[in-house]
Amino acid sequence: MWELHQFALCPFSRKVRLMLGEKGVGYTLMTERPWERRDEFVDLNPTSQTPVMVDPERNIQLIDSSVICEYLEETVDRAQMINGTAINRAEIRRLAIWFDTQFFREVTELLLGERMIKRIVTKAGPDARMLRQAMRAAVECLDYTDYLLGRHNWMAGATLSLADLAAAAQISVADYLGGIDWKNHDQTARWYRGFKSRPSFRPLLSERMEGIAPAPHYADVDF
Amino acid sequence: MWELHQFALCPFSRKVRLMLGEKGVGYTLMTERPWERRDEFVDLNPTSQTPVMVDPERNIQLIDSSVICEYLEETVDRAQMINGTAINRAEIRRLAIWFDTQFFREVTELLLGERMIKRIVTKAGPDARMLRQAMRAAVECLDYTDYLLGRHNWMAGATLSLADLAAAAQISVADYLGGIDWKNHDQTARWYRGFKSRPSFRPLLSERMEGIAPAPHYADVDF
Repeated sequence: MWELHQFALCPFSRKVRLMLGEKGVGYTLMTERPWERRDEFVDLNPTSQTPVMVDPERNIQLIDSSVICEYLEETVDRAQMINGTAINRAEIRRLAIWFDTQFFREVTELLLGERMIKRIVTKAGPDARMLRQAMRAAVECLDYTDYLLGRHNWMAGATLSLADLAAAAQISVADYLGGIDWKNHDQTARWYRGFKSRPSFRPLLSERMEGIAPAPHYADVDF
Repeated sequence: MWELHQFALCPFSRKVRLMLGEKGVGYTLMTERPWERRDEFVDLNPTSQTPVMVDPERNIQLIDSSVICEYLEETVDRAQMINGTAINRAEIRRLAIWFDTQFFREVTELLLGERMIKRIVTKAGPDARMLRQAMRAAVECLDYTDYLLGRHNWMAGATLSLADLAAAAQISVADYLGGIDWKNHDQTARWYRGFKSRPSFRPLLSERMEGIAPAPHYADVDF
């Protein structure tokens, strides 16, 4: 059985959990607070970043969410998430990386820093200026996802793919932390409502990060 | 014919050029200064990051070095660079990502900022404190590559792989900018000397970034 080392608001771990859920692969959640750099976890991954996925019986350790997703895609046939022609696959990977880097850096990382790390580690309040900056960036990002979803049903084309999982992972964490203003983003809101009903996504919606309450509409499927 | 939009010291473009070279795929170099955010380039890639690889005849545009490398691996059989079992492939991708993110952020990005961007854009001199920080980080990174190369001939195993291309791309830019102290890193120095003799690497060694002279030993195969 796989063990996934993660914490509830880690967007990269969420992407892997969505992948595991879509593919119907069982796993056990292991909670890790990577910012504490626990010795045993640093031994597992010297960069002390989540997620790390381990199969103790087979002595397999997989580090980095992109690596884990590519591994699952190669080893589990069910529900292909990097599918289609080489060009389709390139577009799926491009968008997944865009959510993992651009969206993360400009939106999710700032919100996690202000609303989670500060509360847990430094016990300081959030900086309103940084929160506004993240929310402005989120509006621009959702303008882009609206554009993508105006062209086809899913982020990277006609079918659900890793790009949608990466998107839902980042957007759901940003939404939990109150960083998403849904008005004027009908295309993305419709896509996200559909996503919230998927069995792979349900477990994430009911989870809470200790000491940090989600935005009121967070778990509402008809927000 | 592919067109690769890049600049001489872009480590991610170098990774793609090494991949193209190893696979024997022809391409034309197009010089781009992404920090200028030229309109036509932003139209191609809204994040204004190099590399972008374009085939105008087939109307294909590939963005992001990882995406391009996966695409080349899937479409060109020759010289497989993400090879072996799913576990081997995961290790290759993990290390390629480690060089692209960790090594880049701690070493290459700082050196490019201090020794290239400042000279070209702000006309300021480099901050000696930042240079020292990058060089200290490079020592730690090369301790790690020494460890890897003490276990097998190449970064991720018994054969040349994308992990080596990602490593050579980052290390060569850092070395050009004088950020690598080769003493006490015999394993990595031996690996890099071998790399410098590869036909895929030769064109990179002879190139110069306008207005920025390389470290004296940079192009010396027997440094």
